[in-house]
Amino acid sequence: MEIARRGVALILSGPSGVGKSTLKNALVGGEFAFEFSVSCTTRSPRGGEVDGVDYHFVDHELFERHLAAEEFLEHANVHGNFYGTLRSEVEARVMAGRDLLLDIDVQGAQQIKKLASSEPWGAFMTYVFVGPPSMAELEKRLRARNTDSDAVIARRLDGARDEMACWRDYDFLIVNDDMQQAIAELQGLVRAERVRPMRLLTENPW
Amino acid sequence: MEIARRGVALILSGPSGVGKSTLKNALVGGEFAFEFSVSCTTRSPRGGEVDGVDYHFVDHELFERHLAAEEFLEHANVHGNFYGTLRSEVEARVMAGRDLLLDIDVQGAQQIKKLASSEPWGAFMTYVFVGPPSMAELEKRLRARNTDSDAVIARRLDGARDEMACWRDYDFLIVNDDMQQAIAELQGLVRAERVRPMRLLTENPW
Repeated sequence: MEIARRGVALILSGPSGVGKSTLKNALVGGEFAFEFSVSCTTRSPRGGEVDGVDYHFVDHELFERHLAAEEFLEHANVHGNFYGTLRSEVEARVMAGRDLLLDIDVQGAQQIKKLASSEPWGAFMTYVFVGPPSMAELEKRLRARNTDSDAVIARRLDGARDEMACWRDYDFLIVNDDMQQAIAELQGLVRAERVRPMRLLTENPW
Repeated sequence: MEIARRGVALILSGPSGVGKSTLKNALVGGEFAFEFSVSCTTRSPRGGEVDGVDYHFVDHELFERHLAAEEFLEHANVHGNFYGTLRSEVEARVMAGRDLLLDIDVQGAQQIKKLASSEPWGAFMTYVFVGPPSMAELEKRLRARNTDSDAVIARRLDGARDEMACWRDYDFLIVNDDMQQAIAELQGLVRAERVRPMRLLTENPW
């Protein structure tokens, strides 16, 4: 029996190198079938990135128009590039019962949380912070990727420290020490969120 | 890494015949290691029931003394037999981080919820309602047990209808259609409740 319900809009925050990609993949396809919320950005596509899949690549003018029309649930300026989550990526899908994954940083999550308190879809957001087992382990993982200079790694670690300080603002904290355990926690909380009465659209399930 | 935390005190409500025993067993031992909260009762032990394990079997005088001393988190009179949950079964264990299972009916759960709002342990209670896929299926399961007369079954079904009307007062609704699915939902929500920041006893997990 399947009771019609609202979706689970799951915000996943956490520093680079913490394993968010693997966790996201654990919710896509199979039993879970989450959809990704695709962000807008003014930055240029990197090798292999596909418009409408990885990002909506837009120019500054279009970004400004979305902003003026209050179409962003959150947005940020990162080193001169703009990023934002369109309301159209989230609202209708969640209200129609589709589950949605949003990869959003701490500041974006705070913007959404603030807005969510006064909007119908807001009740269906779930905030999950993913952290490393320790700062030393995070540094080790960033170095193992072999993609960043020492200066970039130092900057990432500073950013990570700032983000990690906000872990208490989230509904759940996943410490990614053992990946299988982290996946079990993430999938577990999704199963749980799906059977919250406030998401179920029925007077009487029987 | 294991962060010290408060316990999960899980109240499981739902009508007779819905499969609560199997679900309870899915949280005892193995990964989950829940303890049972043992209720007090003034009724006599039935065949095989062990004092201190199945119930604390007490006389009316002792029950009244617990009641007068406000030592019950909830209590009820069921056809002349008294039942109650002692604060000493719950409070210290939950605050010490032990996970606890309470098999409590809807009215008892409501009593605990009311009390919980003004007590430190109250934040760590999780309310789970287990329902059947349908009334017809519940009746079928009760008849299949072959233990109750038609009159008793009719009374149980009336009671079930009353309890099931309160499903929205719970944090989670598990519809026990497929037992494996129901177990996955229950274990999932336990994994999730364990990683709620409000249960974690640390300033900084890193």
